[in-house]
Amino acid sequence: MKALEERILSEGKILPGPVLKVSSFLNHQIDPDLVMDLGAEIGRLFKDAGVTKILTIESSGIAIALAAGAALHVPVVFAKKHRTSNVSGAVYQTQVHSYTHNTDYTVVVESQFIKPDDKVLLVDDFLANGKALEGLIELVDQAGAKVVGAGIAIEKGFQDGGAALRERGLRIESLAVIDRMDENGITFR
Amino acid sequence: MKALEERILSEGKILPGPVLKVSSFLNHQIDPDLVMDLGAEIGRLFKDAGVTKILTIESSGIAIALAAGAALHVPVVFAKKHRTSNVSGAVYQTQVHSYTHNTDYTVVVESQFIKPDDKVLLVDDFLANGKALEGLIELVDQAGAKVVGAGIAIEKGFQDGGAALRERGLRIESLAVIDRMDENGITFR
Repeated sequence: MKALEERILSEGKILPGPVLKVSSFLNHQIDPDLVMDLGAEIGRLFKDAGVTKILTIESSGIAIALAAGAALHVPVVFAKKHRTSNVSGAVYQTQVHSYTHNTDYTVVVESQFIKPDDKVLLVDDFLANGKALEGLIELVDQAGAKVVGAGIAIEKGFQDGGAALRERGLRIESLAVIDRMDENGITFR
Repeated sequence: MKALEERILSEGKILPGPVLKVSSFLNHQIDPDLVMDLGAEIGRLFKDAGVTKILTIESSGIAIALAAGAALHVPVVFAKKHRTSNVSGAVYQTQVHSYTHNTDYTVVVESQFIKPDDKVLLVDDFLANGKALEGLIELVDQAGAKVVGAGIAIEKGFQDGGAALRERGLRIESLAVIDRMDENGITFR
């Protein structure tokens, strides 16, 4: 998506890792007009997929997931990291490894919010190694529901998460795919 | 706001505390159509306040803050709980006590995202004792910027946060104010 690629080029910062920092418009400060457009595009791409629910992980997935939910008019569920005292009753949960923060965390969804007949669209701001998406897929599996695909803002195409998940049959729509990123700049697929 | 009050009455659950659980439409599962309407209403209430930025705290404030930002077409910044490895450079930070989780946490905003000439609208899903809003006000103070008000989805009017902050001159617009809530039900102001 042109508007997203342009924004990445003008404001993205490449840190060692390589980490792409887009905190000026996507995941610390958010440009609501851009994010609503990203959500609308995800909605357009999945409008015939029979989506009944969107699932993301707090915190940085929430904004784009809400925008996609507003486009598709389906409920948005965000999995919580760590179990909080406000999560009661039966839950689905799994472990996810974060390479960015070099830690494992538990992601939890109250089981009442994913039903066996749900067709779930996964939404997140980033796809890199795919661990977050794998965690969300595991939660949907626990519920006995179906994953219809994943809508992603930015995919790091040079990491193996996207390829491995597509190999498993997952439909992934990434609005910007970065093939290369280093001190010389960013190349999109 | 009638639609919010009706939703609280039909789906809200009162837990000991008393805690009002609205996780089916506001802060675990989100009804995007409702939340976009809440944001539009906050936008309407503050449309003449010269807002240049919206500030909230992750995670449950993000959705309604995005919706308000989409209405006002201003950037949305969410303060992060704890310092993560992705927050670099100069930051504003303060401590906030959470009664819900009985813990203190650090809220952090990269200083580049609040400028001295910003007119900041605070947005959150709940207002009870006011500790989260006080923390956000402190961050804006550190930046030398101005707080123009607070847009809140649900205020627990029987706790003293709202009254104390209004006493200090803060304009607070709460879309639903609960005056009483117990085993007999919920009374709105």
